[in-house]
Amino acid sequence: MDITQFVEKSLGRWRSQRSAHHMIFSHFEAVQSVIDIVSLPPHDAEVIALCQSHSIDPDQAVSPFRMTWEGESDWEENAKMEGTCILVPIPDPTNPKTGKLLRDQGYAETIAAIGEYSLTEDDTFVLVTPYDRASAEEKIWFVNPNLRLRVSLIKTSDGNGVVTASFASEIRSLSDS
Amino acid sequence: MDITQFVEKSLGRWRSQRSAHHMIFSHFEAVQSVIDIVSLPPHDAEVIALCQSHSIDPDQAVSPFRMTWEGESDWEENAKMEGTCILVPIPDPTNPKTGKLLRDQGYAETIAAIGEYSLTEDDTFVLVTPYDRASAEEKIWFVNPNLRLRVSLIKTSDGNGVVTASFASEIRSLSDS
Repeated sequence: MDITQFVEKSLGRWRSQRSAHHMIFSHFEAVQSVIDIVSLPPHDAEVIALCQSHSIDPDQAVSPFRMTWEGESDWEENAKMEGTCILVPIPDPTNPKTGKLLRDQGYAETIAAIGEYSLTEDDTFVLVTPYDRASAEEKIWFVNPNLRLRVSLIKTSDGNGVVTASFASEIRSLSDS
Repeated sequence: MDITQFVEKSLGRWRSQRSAHHMIFSHFEAVQSVIDIVSLPPHDAEVIALCQSHSIDPDQAVSPFRMTWEGESDWEENAKMEGTCILVPIPDPTNPKTGKLLRDQGYAETIAAIGEYSLTEDDTFVLVTPYDRASAEEKIWFVNPNLRLRVSLIKTSDGNGVVTASFASEIRSLSDS
């Protein structure tokens, strides 16, 4: 599987059940959300601007997409979690199973970032994103075309400690509502 | 990583936080438990008996171990979950990164089973176990020597539908209590 096929399989609306394990407090958090993933044309103005902001030739971008989410957590009552961002894969020309993933700031709490992705032999998408004081590590894979699983770790910046481990099971929504 | 190293890294006491997503009900279940994994000598009488019950030469067994767990779920109040079983890896002589995993019945609800395991290039232990009316698929990997993650799926016997997807983060317990 390459990044084009991975993005292709991810397009659509997903109902996500996510459990976060906050390691220090042994606390379980449950989040239910709806995630929409739509493809963007390569000549999209925001895609081009995002590439240029990183001094990357927009012609290197492959399968850019927008992700939008809206959900609720059982941790903070009445706190709506929502956001949207643009994601732009830039495959490594020497090894197209790996590359960079650019993300814009979007609105809401999203932080602009550049991650490094790779696709493993068993078709797991692995993404590592460094931040100022932490790093995020994600694994995403498909069990079948309608079920996507995602394990995310928030690590301390030295890469050893894990602050939060979370797991999402995402079922394709066959209705539009 | 081979099965000997994987079992070696797994030995000890683990505090497990497990979230189960019951897909049909969109229900979140939270389970907290303590898991003990201890190695067994290859000439252990129960290990030999388990191999023989499957007509397998006990000399083929590598790194047999016992797993014991005790925990509590937030789904059924006051229902103690506990059990123990013996697990015996039988590596494939032609490809030692794969093999069979024998499991005895133990006491409690455990079902005797034979699974097929493999270790991927990124050191994930993958186990597929068929049952009469369902199958289980597990992925286990280490984030660091003191944090083990486990994703388990219970599938319908045709292998397509997923009934339950669960995620455990297991932290090595540095005390004996």
